[in-house]
Order: sequence, then structure tokens, then C-alpha cells
Amino acid sequence: MAIFSFKNDYSEGAHPRIYEALQRTNFQQAEGYGEDFICAEAAEMLRNAAKCPNATVTFMPGGTLANVVLIAHALRAFEGVIAPETGHINGHECGAVEATGHKILTVPSSDGKLTAPQISAVLLEYNTPQVVSPRLVYISQATDLGTVYTRDELAEIYAVCRENGLYLYVDGARIGNALAAEPSLTLADVAELSDAFTVGGTKNGFLYGDALIITNAELARNIKHSQKQRGAMLAKGRVIGAQYAEMFRDGLYYELAAHANGMGVLLRDGLAALDVKFACDSPTNLQFPIFYDAEVARLAERYSFNVIRRYDAVSSVVRLVTSWATEEESVRGLIEWLG
Amino acid sequence: MAIFSFKNDYSEGAHPRIYEALQRTNFQQAEGYGEDFICAEAAEMLRNAAKCPNATVTFMPGGTLANVVLIAHALRAFEGVIAPETGHINGHECGAVEATGHKILTVPSSDGKLTAPQISAVLLEYNTPQVVSPRLVYISQATDLGTVYTRDELAEIYAVCRENGLYLYVDGARIGNALAAEPSLTLADVAELSDAFTVGGTKNGFLYGDALIITNAELARNIKHSQKQRGAMLAKGRVIGAQYAEMFRDGLYYELAAHANGMGVLLRDGLAALDVKFACDSPTNLQFPIFYDAEVARLAERYSFNVIRRYDAVSSVVRLVTSWATEEESVRGLIEWLG
Amino acid sequence: MAIFSFKNDYSEGAHPRIYEALQRTNFQQAEGYGEDFICAEAAEMLRNAAKCPNATVTFMPGGTLANVVLIAHALRAFEGVIAPETGHINGHECGAVEATGHKILTVPSSDGKLTAPQISAVLLEYNTPQVVSPRLVYISQATDLGTVYTRDELAEIYAVCRENGLYLYVDGARIGNALAAEPSLTLADVAELSDAFTVGGTKNGFLYGDALIITNAELARNIKHSQKQRGAMLAKGRVIGAQYAEMFRDGLYYELAAHANGMGVLLRDGLAALDVKFACDSPTNLQFPIFYDAEVARLAERYSFNVIRRYDAVSSVVRLVTSWATEEESVRGLIEWLG
Amino acid sequence: MAIFSFKNDYSEGAHPRIYEALQRTNFQQAEGYGEDFICAEAAEMLRNAAKCPNATVTFMPGGTLANVVLIAHALRAFEGVIAPETGHINGHECGAVEATGHKILTVPSSDGKLTAPQISAVLLEYNTPQVVSPRLVYISQATDLGTVYTRDELAEIYAVCRENGLYLYVDGARIGNALAAEPSLTLADVAELSDAFTVGGTKNGFLYGDALIITNAELARNIKHSQKQRGAMLAKGRVIGAQYAEMFRDGLYYELAAHANGMGVLLRDGLAALDVKFACDSPTNLQFPIFYDAEVARLAERYSFNVIRRYDAVSSVVRLVTSWATEEESVRGLIEWLG
Repeated sequence: MAIFSFKNDYSEGAHPRIYEALQRTNFQQAEGYGEDFICAEAAEMLRNAAKCPNATVTFMPGGTLANVVLIAHALRAFEGVIAPETGHINGHECGAVEATGHKILTVPSSDGKLTAPQISAVLLEYNTPQVVSPRLVYISQATDLGTVYTRDELAEIYAVCRENGLYLYVDGARIGNALAAEPSLTLADVAELSDAFTVGGTKNGFLYGDALIITNAELARNIKHSQKQRGAMLAKGRVIGAQYAEMFRDGLYYELAAHANGMGVLLRDGLAALDVKFACDSPTNLQFPIFYDAEVARLAERYSFNVIRRYDAVSSVVRLVTSWATEEESVRGLIEWLG
Repeated sequence: MAIFSFKNDYSEGAHPRIYEALQRTNFQQAEGYGEDFICAEAAEMLRNAAKCPNATVTFMPGGTLANVVLIAHALRAFEGVIAPETGHINGHECGAVEATGHKILTVPSSDGKLTAPQISAVLLEYNTPQVVSPRLVYISQATDLGTVYTRDELAEIYAVCRENGLYLYVDGARIGNALAAEPSLTLADVAELSDAFTVGGTKNGFLYGDALIITNAELARNIKHSQKQRGAMLAKGRVIGAQYAEMFRDGLYYELAAHANGMGVLLRDGLAALDVKFACDSPTNLQFPIFYDAEVARLAERYSFNVIRRYDAVSSVVRLVTSWATEEESVRGLIEWLG
Repeated sequence: MAIFSFKNDYSEGAHPRIYEALQRTNFQQAEGYGEDFICAEAAEMLRNAAKCPNATVTFMPGGTLANVVLIAHALRAFEGVIAPETGHINGHECGAVEATGHKILTVPSSDGKLTAPQISAVLLEYNTPQVVSPRLVYISQATDLGTVYTRDELAEIYAVCRENGLYLYVDGARIGNALAAEPSLTLADVAELSDAFTVGGTKNGFLYGDALIITNAELARNIKHSQKQRGAMLAKGRVIGAQYAEMFRDGLYYELAAHANGMGVLLRDGLAALDVKFACDSPTNLQFPIFYDAEVARLAERYSFNVIRRYDAVSSVVRLVTSWATEEESVRGLIEWLG
Repeated sequence: MAIFSFKNDYSEGAHPRIYEALQRTNFQQAEGYGEDFICAEAAEMLRNAAKCPNATVTFMPGGTLANVVLIAHALRAFEGVIAPETGHINGHECGAVEATGHKILTVPSSDGKLTAPQISAVLLEYNTPQVVSPRLVYISQATDLGTVYTRDELAEIYAVCRENGLYLYVDGARIGNALAAEPSLTLADVAELSDAFTVGGTKNGFLYGDALIITNAELARNIKHSQKQRGAMLAKGRVIGAQYAEMFRDGLYYELAAHANGMGVLLRDGLAALDVKFACDSPTNLQFPIFYDAEVARLAERYSFNVIRRYDAVSSVVRLVTSWATEEESVRGLIEWLG
């Protein structure tokens, strides 16, 4: 029997409608560099979905580029980024932010989330020329641990940012999963409660692509320069635009994210019924069960996945990920295999 | 009548076989970050095509990223790049190389090409701590002016580089066009006569993608770190891999480039028959006719294109580009329109 | 007979009054990092001298650091610097500006000076995301060729800058020489007609030191962060402060610069009387005579100096520099030796 | 009564012999940029003192510059630095290392020291393209907490570095204090057990200056380029050279450091006799007593100093620093005042 992967949410190609959409306009000529009619339509759909009619939408090839473009664009040389220690920019992008010259001021976090008081504490500490001047707060929604900020938490963070002249940037590589899991929150809320955010494509059924949406007009100025400078302005921008247009035409984007979450919760509840404990409480498609070494070994016979860290002498934290492409039968199979 | 574009070689989507190829493996699970079986197959095809069995192949989203990743990877902080003034990295990437901390030492060029003696002259001038230390030579093949280095020219440049401890990097965004136009040169020659080169996809019928091929083993070490750091390692690397595999499976890549060149030459010869002069002599899909102002105005009624610069008081240099998707009828239409 | 150097204006140590000044306060305790009473006094003297009571004065160890600190502080990542090709930042600082991520847009100049129309032309050319966005104009006063901007020239440049949202930064490594040579111009004029400028110490009798004076309040904000980040904030800032206080207490700074110029003009006129021609017309302490090869050889028997470039088949441009420490007898000796 | 400062070891100017030395050669002409006979003599003295006849010695204006020059010189873009969390480069240089593009991988430390096993642990964790590749270990000797590595500790760290292809760089801003405190260690040991180290001047009676000594020949190559690029190559390099020559001519450097330590230990023992506890056990000129709030308040009436952090509800950790210029009477005065 072949090994089945629960390693991530990008193991398959793209949702079939992506191909249909691309082929539909394939031979229509379009401007380069995202200045085309397809990107224009997609941008308008995103602005409507997020109720931010004046926002600037830029299409990027991937999430690391979106993060780097926005952060390097926002900061002057002496300024830094506040982020939770577990943030993607800190541990998974090979020093991409530092490579643009900026220090990340990390804050400890057990559940992947940053809190408003933590931001205030950083501001108190970083207020002399001996240290960089904090200017931007980076959070991800959903977080790298699968957890989700409520609307209130986000509002509290944004209030601290505004009082202190900080930009708030929300990495939405899995924003569909966050919105599907958190009933208190809409995309319009995210737009209202941040200066910039992304709507990730790659992890939700796209071939590739990330949409950077900047609601703060001053921050948006000249963003295409920064996009070009970091190599994130693809000649055929239309290819990304067409995918967003298709996904937001009728809500397919949300549908796929909800499916992924549903599979994640099915997995979580199934394992919980087997008395498995979890490293954190996630309502999304990222689950972090704690498995005994024997269970890890058994799982590895049929599945691929990542072991995150040792938990104690006899067990480890494992990361299991479901996606738009995961079928119920695959989840049930895993639970049975361990049961 | 709709405006028809001769602005560039990326106005259309992708060649139909690209979609077929992507859909064929769409639901097979694959590893992320280019570590999958599809990229492995594509890399092997490229190594075979270039007869460099030990080369390291890395798939990038686009050409600017390939340039930035390789150049920033190759250089230490105090080192710089030698490039012709017309090189893409100098005038069309918004300071992307400088943004990684490196100065470009530009050399004047009327036909887009750099010569071996020019490199030697730079080395004589840049040899004190007051100036950066040249370490890498950047050329493009074909050049941004549509011209092509012969095998001998390339060999002479590489000889100077090797004698002086310089890396030679060939930007192959249009390498298919170069090979189709220059009978003295094969892909294996490029591999043999450089330390690294790219095989561009975007401008030759791909959705997107650039393949960076490093033949110098020492230079290749840790390239995936640099790819990740610059945001050029897409999660679904497979999507780029699948396109290269399809294009190199049976020579479609060369076929499309030859077609684009054929259309360029048809256009060139047709205009020449109308007594149009050219700013430089190009055998590829980029043509630079010199048009009187009235001709420019007439052309603009039916076509979109770029005016490069004023030529004299009454005329300008225009850039006309053909591609894999250009039909003979479109070229003949333009010639008739001006005739 | 020992070789005597006309190579530069920093061949000797410091003016004797520098030592007296330093020793006077040597055992008084002072705050670190330029926050001390001595720097405060010196800053006040400079603000008075330049009639800019609200300017921010920061003391730097040297000129390259002053340039790098100010430029990297002023620019956002996608912005660049306009400078004459001969500017110190372009050819003599080992890519220091590029190392902070910014491209220098160079403009040809035969006399070391930039003109207002040249700036306008750059702005017309650099106005798309494909190229960096010009944000700061760098000039030096006096220039690297010993020439000096008049008040009118400076005013014209600053007018273009203000109309276009560009900062104007004047590198004053030899500003004393400029002021001593150009009766139309005062230090207060420079302060009024720029956003930031330096008053160089090293080349005018200091042990070391450069004062960066920022008159644009918005640009001055957080400058100490940038100073610290680039390593330009010395723990004993007082040592630089004490030197400026001494030099501006009673006009010694101007006196030394006038002496250096006087020696330069004596040298120029003496050589001219021998029918020597000059590469450019300099009223300051930098002179660029054109010597026949035999003259160069004869000169080298007794003097050290730099040959700048070949002029023609039989002669070269030589750089001869006088300083605060040059004695009339040394200048006359050189003229006689060649006469 | 005037406030007396125990804030740092750079409150006074320079040792009187520094002025004598500078004046001795003041009117002898010398080459610029550290290429002069005075720097040559000083470099030779340092090589002799450290028994590393082939080392490359470069004179820098200050410690942050020395750190930045060496680190940015050593690393390729994708490489990072391992340092203790308390290291000067991490918390006191305004992101200077990150501003050159490199991430610092910090390791927790309660006494300011890094251990060999900690380095090994970082290497195990940082071994994929998702994270930067560790290449250089930064430690300071003495540390920012006044503690000192023994010869054995240093040897153990260097062994791990060599086994793993890491450079070891020792920030010696207070290396005199370390050597004076640690009988097991000589300057020759530091040279033997590292790839590069500094011999700090500013904190040991110089006007300013830091000597960077590179014993690893491959690392030393082109260091003057990096020195120039970071603005650390002063035109009058001779001024720094003259200070080192004077300090190492007859051991004055060691004498001053020993005096500073003696004052530190006198202070420590005097406070200990008053039952004061310390945050860490320092044998050097940096002492970290834990004072009750009332003691802090009483101390502040007559002395200036830094409060480092709260220790508990009723007390704080204070930093008291002695120096080459501290007199016994001042130390005894402080102890009496608190007694």
C-alpha cells in the first residue's frame, strides 16, 4: 500500500476549476506584470469580498515573497518587526526578513498567537537608539499552530498598533481556514483591523499565488516598486489573477477552506476518541497530536507527516495537515489504523 | 478592430500541452518545495539536454528571482557584478541586485553584448579596496536587444572569467531563441562555457517558471538556502517541474522558440523590404525597427508596442516582439498595414 | 632628500590646538554616545555658524560613515540616489551605499558638478516600477575635482529637489575649502539650500570626525538609531565634539581651509606660469595639472602624488593636494623643481 | 557635591600618554587609510603580543564597526551568526548585523557565556534550507556581564567550531580585563583559539579605536574591502595606530586593564562585606550588585549608574563599572556612602 501524506496542504496540484478558468482566457492577449484585465477583475472581487473598496491588491507568486515585499516596503532601515517566536517569518523563511536588513523582535508564544500586552511590553523595552525601533507587527491568521484570533483579539492588537504608530500586517496564508473556523470574524473584519493582509492561494487549491491587500493608503504607495525589486512581479500576472477570480466568483475559496477544516476536526475528534492528547487546541486543518513513540512508528508505516518536537521521554508532537483535497475516507483510514 | 499586441512574448497564457501535463499528475501527492518526483524528472531532462549530468537544477517562479537568487548566492559582501549597461538586472529589475547589497559595474554596449576585452578592462580598473571586487559576469543570451553570442564569443568570455576567478552567469530568459538563431551553439555549449545559466519558461509558452542550472559544484552548494531566503522556493514546486518536463520531453521548447524567431525574421524581412532600417541586427524574436513619427502613429492605431527611445528629430526606435503564439497572418497584417 | 607628499590633505596629524582642547577636558566625566556637554556645545556652535537653530547635529567618525548613515536613513527600500558619476559615494567607498541596498543613479559630469536640468532628466526617465524611485540627490561641495557650486547653482538644484520631493544632501568633506573659495556662499546658505549637509573635519586639521547637520526635521527623526546601526556612534563622542568646539570657537576652521586654498592657488598659478595646463579649473586645494610623462617622472623623484588618468599619448592628469599643514616653501619648492 | 559616574568605562578622555604619542609624530607625513608606518609598527606589536606573526591587523574606529565589518565579511548571504542572547551584537547595536542581511541565532545565557554543547545543539536544529546556515560563532571576552571564559572553555568552543566549519570570532572590547582576570589565558591563547578577535581600545584609555586581528588567512583575504565598504577605514588611520603602538610598547594596555579590574574587585568585595548579593560573579571591572530600592535611591543621590532590570519586588540589578581612570578613593567613597 502506498504511503499517504498528511504532511501539508499542498501535496496535490490545483482544484479542477483552476484549469478551466485559465484555459478560458488562455489566448486572449493581456498586459504584463499584473496590469491586465484579469487581475483587475480579481482585485475588484477581493476588494468586494473584504469590503475595502480603496485597497490596493497585488498578486504575488507565494507567501514568503508577499511577507518580504510588504515588510521591506513598510520599514525604514532602523525599524524592526514584532512577531511571535513561532511566526513563519522567524523560523521558516531562511532569514528572508533579515536579508532585507531588518531585525525581528520575537515574543514567546505557546499557541502561536501574539497578545496586545506583549506588544506594549516590547514597545517599553525598545525605545533607545541602541535597539531597533519597532514599526510593524506581524501575525498569521490562522497561526502556524492552527489556532485562530477572534475578532476581539484582533481588534485589541490593532488598537495597540494604532496608538503607537505601528503597522499591523496579517499573514493570511491560511486565512480561509481561519474564517471558516471563527464565526466572529469576516474578511471585512480583517481588512478593517489591519493595515495589510494576505489571502493565500497555494494552501487552498491554487497552483500557486498569494494576494497582498493593503488598506492603508500611505503604506500602499509604490508597492509595485517593491514587488518588482523583490522579484515578485511575474510577467504573466494574469495567471495568478485568473485563479483568484475563479475562487472568489462564487465562494469556492471559502468552500475549500471549510472542507479542509472539516477534515481537520474529523481527524482531531477521531484521535481524541482514542484518548490522544494535543499540543494545542486547533479548530482548523492543522492538528498537533501527541503520539507515543510506538504510535509514531506505526503511523509511519502507512503515512507521511512531520514530527515537530519531542514532548517527553516517551512521546512526540506530530503535525497532521488536511486540505481541500483530503477525502473523509483517508481521515477515517488513519484513525482506524491507529485505533 | 481590436488592438493587437507586439509588446512582448508573454501576452498569451500557456501552450495547451502545459495544461494537459499539469492535469495528468494533478491528484498524485508530491513532496513540497521542489523535492518531488516531477521536479526530479524535469531536472534530469534538463541535465540531459545540456549534457551536464552533475549540474544542480533549481526551479524558480521567474527570471528576476533566478537572477537575484544566483547573484546574491554567489557573492560575498564586498564583491560586485560586471554587466552590460543594457543588461536586464541593471535597468529593468528595480535595483533588485543592489537591494541584496551588491553594486553592478556596467559596461557600455551598443548591441547588448559584452566582450572579453571589456571584462579585462574592468578588472584592471577595479583592483583596490576603494572599489568593489568584481566576482561575477552577467550576460543574457539572447540579449535584451535580441542579439546572440556565438559559441566563440561565449568561449572567449568564459576564458577571461576563468583566468580571473570570476563566475560567468548566463541569463537565459530567451535562451531558446538564442539557440534557435545561432547554429554554432547548443545548450551543452552554454553549460560548458558558464558556471550557471537559466532556461527561461515564461517567455516561451509556460504559465511561469525559470530553471536555474548550476554546473559549478562549489557555486551550487546551499543554493536551496538562497532560493528559500529570496522567496523563490514555491511550496508547489511540482507545477514548474511539470512544465519543464513537458517542454523537454520531445523538444517542444525548441520548437516554440524556433517559431517565435521565424515570426521575428518574417517581420524583420518584411519591414526591410519597405526600406525600414533597424537599430540593431537581430536574428530572434525581438526586432528594433526605426520608424518615422508618422509610421509610429499609424502603427499605434492597430497595434500595441513599445517605443524605446528617440532616434533622431523625425524618428524613433520601436520594439516589436513575436512569440510562440504569434501567427504568420498577424505578422503579415502589420507589414501590410505599414506598407 | 625625503619624498614630500602632495597626495592628500590628511598626511599630517592634527592642528596643535586640537590636542590642547582635548586635554583641557580630559578628566572631566562625560556621558557616552555623543550625549555629553562637550558635543552639546559644539553642536550649538555649528547651528550658530550655519544659522539653523533647529538643526540636528550628529558627530560621526568619518565621511563615508556620514554618507552611509544619512543616505540609508533617508531612503525606503525601493528608492535610489542621484549623484554625479564622479561623486565620492560612487567610486571611492567600495559600494557602501549599495551595501545598504540602494542603487546610485549616476549622471555624467566633466567638472564634478551636477546640474538642475540633469536631475529633471533623471526624474523623467525613472518613473516606473521597473526602476528605482529617485529620492535623494547627492552632491559634494567642494567636489572631488576641486570645483565649487555657486549659491545660484545650489539654489537651482534645491528648487528642483523641492518641487519633486527629493532630499538634497551636500557632502561637505571639504566644505571649508568651498566656502573659502566662493564668496557668494556662506555656511548659512548651504543650510538653507539643502536638507542635510556635512562639515568635514578630517581633511581640515582634525584627528578625525565629520559633523552631519540635518535641517529637515522629518529627515532628522531617529537619526541616532541609524548612526548606531551603522557603527557610527562612538562611545567617546566627546572626542569629536571637542574638536568641533575648538575649530568653531573663533573661526580656526575657516582659517585653515583658507590657508589650504591659498597654497592650492599658489601652486596652480606657479604651474600655469610654467605653461602647465589643467584638467579643470579649481579655486581650492585640489589641483589637476596635466603633465608630460617626463614631468611626471621628474616630479616622482621628490614628491608623492596620484596620477588620475592618461590625458593623451604623451601626458597624464595628476592630482596635487595642499592642506592646512602645507607650507609656502613646499609649494615653491615643487614649482622650482619642475621649472 | 557633583554626581560621580560609575556608568561605564569611557566617561573620561584618554590616558595622558596617548596625547604624548600622537604629538610625537604629528607633523611627520604618513600614508592614508592605515597604510602608514605608524600602523605598521602597531600591527607588528600586536602580532608579537599575540604570537601570531601571520595575522592581519586592521584598525577600526570602534567596536560595533569591528563586529559588523568582520561578520559581514565572513558570511555569505544565507549564513547566520550564533551568539549568546546577551551578546553586544544582539541587544546593543541597533540591529547592525541584521542590517547587513544576517540573522543572529541567539542562545539563552545566564552568565553571558556560550557553551560548546549549546553550539552543537544549534547545529542540529539549523540544518535545512528553511533556516539560515550557521557559519560564525560570536562571543565576547570579557562578556557583557563581566564574566570571563577560561582557556579550557575557549578551547572547547573552538574545537566544536573547527569540527563543524564555523568561524569563531571573539569580541575583545574588554579583552584586557579578561586577560587581567583569568590567569589561565594569554593573548596568544586567544589568537590560537579563534579565527579572529579584537583588542578594544575605547574602554581601556584610548581616545577611540579597536584592532581587528584575523588569524585565519582565508578569512583575512580582502578585509580592507569590507572595512572600506562599512565606512570603517578612516583617512587618518595613523591616529589609531599610534595609540596601539603606545599602549603595547611597554605593557601599558595590560596595566590599565589590571587597574580597572582591581577597582572592580575592590568595589565587589566592599559591597559583599555589606551583605550585598550579585547577579553574577564577575572578576572584572563590570559588577552587577542587587540593591534594594532604597539603596538604589540613596546611590542615585551621589552617583550615576545603570539599573539593568528588576530583580524582585523590592530590588533591582544595578551595573557599576570601573575603569583605567577610576581612583581607589572613589570606590571607597561609594562603599561608605552605602554602608
